[in-house]
Order: sequence, then structure tokens, then C-alpha cells
Amino acid sequence: MIVVGIDPGVARVGYGVLERTNRNPTPLTYGCIETKSGQRQSLRLRECYEGISQVLDEYSPACVAVEKLFFSKNTTSAMQVSEARGVLLLAAEERDIPIAEYTPNQIKQAVTGSGRADKQQVQEMMRRLLRLQEIPRPDDAADGLAVALCHIHTMR
Amino acid sequence: MIVVGIDPGVARVGYGVLERTNRNPTPLTYGCIETKSGQRQSLRLRECYEGISQVLDEYSPACVAVEKLFFSKNTTSAMQVSEARGVLLLAAEERDIPIAEYTPNQIKQAVTGSGRADKQQVQEMMRRLLRLQEIPRPDDAADGLAVALCHIHTMR
Repeated sequence: MIVVGIDPGVARVGYGVLERTNRNPTPLTYGCIETKSGQRQSLRLRECYEGISQVLDEYSPACVAVEKLFFSKNTTSAMQVSEARGVLLLAAEERDIPIAEYTPNQIKQAVTGSGRADKQQVQEMMRRLLRLQEIPRPDDAADGLAVALCHIHTMR
Repeated sequence: MIVVGIDPGVARVGYGVLERTNRNPTPLTYGCIETKSGQRQSLRLRECYEGISQVLDEYSPACVAVEKLFFSKNTTSAMQVSEARGVLLLAAEERDIPIAEYTPNQIKQAVTGSGRADKQQVQEMMRRLLRLQEIPRPDDAADGLAVALCHIHTMR
């Protein structure tokens, strides 16, 4: 079973694709859809949508796991990220792929054992748990892998 | 020139289609895309996206005018509405339709002369300015017309 994990954002959408086997989860790919900050918001949303659509079409996952937005004080940024979340959820829904959502704390707890882990800890644990030679970069890609792994752990 | 005005929401997306002529703007249609509250968010987003796509394909507007979200204290609702805004902006961007955005105050000011006007005033002014026999209902549809009219006034 293939799971695509998504860390939503408008500047960067992190994603990680894991295959759940009888043994350990195997990373198939991971990366980051980047959009330029000078561009209009609607074009950035389109790029996020088209980028994730390509990943979903390539890997046909059984499930998409998406990080829930933790509400920050920066409301403008929170609204922009929510708009990006909207188009990412749409891409999954259009393909009839079930969507699971996890809070940042649930994800950190699942992959590091602590809800307070920092970005570096998450990156390092992803490297270890997925037996990668290097830590996954940028941290958005590591977060994408972490959401996918969180979902696989939760399903067990 | 045809303008589609959109009042974003996840339960109800109000829209109004106006044709700008040499005389007064003429309403071509207006209405509301409604989604059921019990449904999952991603399906509601898809319905918003497909509903507005249909309107845009039918009227091929020169511009889409969208209400900016005024940030409320209810952050969960604000995030859900932002997700809906995301898919609505995407539908316009995919058709290469320019997008203009207006705050609720700019819209009220443009159509009633006061940024503090209430929903009923906006509905009544829409009826008068667009020479409709009845006030446009529901108020989301009236708001859709108001955004479109605000854009036409602003362009003059």
C-alpha cells in the first residue's frame, strides 16, 4: 500500500511517498514543490495543485495523509497556507483518494516519540527510520515523509 | 465585458454575473453553490470548485472579482473558508481569467456608500441598482453580485 504524505504550504509543499510492506516502510520518493514569492497567489496555488497532481498520478496512492494547519498568530500567512491546503485536498478528492489528517504534534509524537521535537530531530529520525543515507532535505520534504509515516504507524 | 463576482464560503459560495455595457450593468444570472454540512471538507471543496467552474465556462468572464476574507475570531471557520477560496481562485487561474480582490468594506462602500452597511442594505441596493423585481436571495448571491458591481465601479 502506497501513502503520500503532504506538508502543505504556498511557498513550499513538502511530500513523501512511502510503500507499506510487511517489513519496514520503504521510501519511493520525496521532495518539495516550490513556488516563487513574487508571483500572484492564484498562480502559486495552481503550481501547488499541478505539482501534487503529478505526484498522485505517478504513484496512485491508497491514501493521502495531510498535516493539519496549526493556527499561528500570522493570520495572513495562515490564510494563504489554508488556500494551498484547499487545492491539495481537491487534487486528492478528484482522484477519489481517501484523506487522513494529522496535527503537527501527532506527527512528531509518531516519528520521534515526542510532540515537542524540532525540525532537525524529525529530519534525523526520518533518515534512521527509513534507512536513508542522508537526512531528507529540505525540511518540508522530511515533514512530508513524516506525515506519511505517521499515517502508517497509526493504521497498525 | 462580463464580470463574475464571488463571495467565497464552504457551505455557500455566492456568485453574481454582470455584463458591463455603456449604460447600467446588467445582471445575467446570480445564485449560490451549496454544500452539505455533514460531508467531508474535501468533497465540499470539490463541489465548490466544480460549481464555479461551470459558471466560468458558461459565461467566460473577462474578470473574476473575489471577496477577501475578513479575519474572524473563529479560526477553524476562517481556515475552512480559506480552503474554499483556494479552489475558487484555482478555477479562475486555470482559465487564465484575471482576478481582482476586494475587502468587505470596499464592497459595501462601493454599493451602498457606507462600509458599515448590513446584509439587508446590500440586498436592497442590489435590487435597486440592478433593477431587479425582488431582492436577490440568499444574501450570499447578493454579495456575489455586489463584488462584481464593486469591480465595475472601481474600473470606471
